[in-house]
Amino acid sequence: MENVVTPLMREILPFWGELTDAQQKTLTDSVVRKTFTKGESLHSGDEDCLGLFVIKSGRIRVFFLSESGKEVTLYRLFERDICIFSASCIIRNINFEVFVTAETDTEALLIPALIFDRLSRSSIAAADYANQLMASRFSDVMWVMEQVMFMSFDKRLAMFLLEQANIEGKDRIHLTQEAIANHLGSAREVVTRMLRYFQEEGIVELFRGGLQIKDRKKLLALTYTNPET
Amino acid sequence: MENVVTPLMREILPFWGELTDAQQKTLTDSVVRKTFTKGESLHSGDEDCLGLFVIKSGRIRVFFLSESGKEVTLYRLFERDICIFSASCIIRNINFEVFVTAETDTEALLIPALIFDRLSRSSIAAADYANQLMASRFSDVMWVMEQVMFMSFDKRLAMFLLEQANIEGKDRIHLTQEAIANHLGSAREVVTRMLRYFQEEGIVELFRGGLQIKDRKKLLALTYTNPET
Repeated sequence: MENVVTPLMREILPFWGELTDAQQKTLTDSVVRKTFTKGESLHSGDEDCLGLFVIKSGRIRVFFLSESGKEVTLYRLFERDICIFSASCIIRNINFEVFVTAETDTEALLIPALIFDRLSRSSIAAADYANQLMASRFSDVMWVMEQVMFMSFDKRLAMFLLEQANIEGKDRIHLTQEAIANHLGSAREVVTRMLRYFQEEGIVELFRGGLQIKDRKKLLALTYTNPET
Repeated sequence: MENVVTPLMREILPFWGELTDAQQKTLTDSVVRKTFTKGESLHSGDEDCLGLFVIKSGRIRVFFLSESGKEVTLYRLFERDICIFSASCIIRNINFEVFVTAETDTEALLIPALIFDRLSRSSIAAADYANQLMASRFSDVMWVMEQVMFMSFDKRLAMFLLEQANIEGKDRIHLTQEAIANHLGSAREVVTRMLRYFQEEGIVELFRGGLQIKDRKKLLALTYTNPET
């Protein structure tokens, strides 16, 4: 029953060892390898419900879309992370929809929704894992909510730029002001205004389609300010 | 094994019928009856972790508190609802803290955290139910986030006043402007300004410690506006 995906499943799924041989076989036999190019959609609101994506390589973005088309990034997932909301149809009592796109070229293993649903009804370890995954994402979303509600925009933008530089591994960030606004659930004009202020302060240098962080220390200092007090 | 709390448990817990006799007995034997007076705390961030509260009567409020003491209501729970975040210590991967207080005098049954933890590790039906509860609360929180991010404040305030009138069963709302601000995660000054505007428009009449809804139709119309377009 050893299959080319088995080692990865064993490594990433913490409940693998608690499955029966038959359950392991069903899982490996049903897993589908998928590749997505940068910008491609993995999941679109309630239009599809493919299943859980186990990210092999690349990066995906999970975001919320308002009725009028405004976006806000809820979280991003990286290598070895598992995307559960692309299987939202099997999670009862979820009545919101999220969108998932590939931020870079991405390789993933898809565990089909029905297979995982059946598994989590027969294996308490798998059910418990689904619960933990949801709790993690819930925590991510609460963190976004805390930022949106209680942090000033300069602080949020500074945190985002540092996170982005960290993800990209360099201080030159290729993201339009529109894209940054979509990450932060804000308007492009607001991002433009704040980035210009950052530029005047010598913190960043703007160029067409992106920006260069010039003063990390000052950017970091912004994330420590507490505008509420 | 019939106990005074058994009928309520059977009625409220959808997984009751799938428990073994021994599991049912453990549950009924360990459940504790609790009463809370209006304003009393049921759960305070990470300071306690009593367990799941099954609301017999009354109303509780679950809210988030920022570092500097700002509040926002995440959801309210009513008769027959179950509060899971008062048992947050048994939910792995939850790294945010919420607060729970009684909004009216409240009677509840407490299922101790350790008992439920053990149950959800031995009963797939109980584990699945915990998962559904969390998914419901996740959906509630996403709804709050959607409001905060994408709705204008007049719309949010109008929705809150209508919800409150609905809960109280009357159009005379006894809530200070401070309390309303804490529900909405806003500043008191912002609430005051908007309520004064509502009063000028003949929608509400303010009095010390509360307000009277004068024109439901206009209030309802505000909730339909879409300021994003």
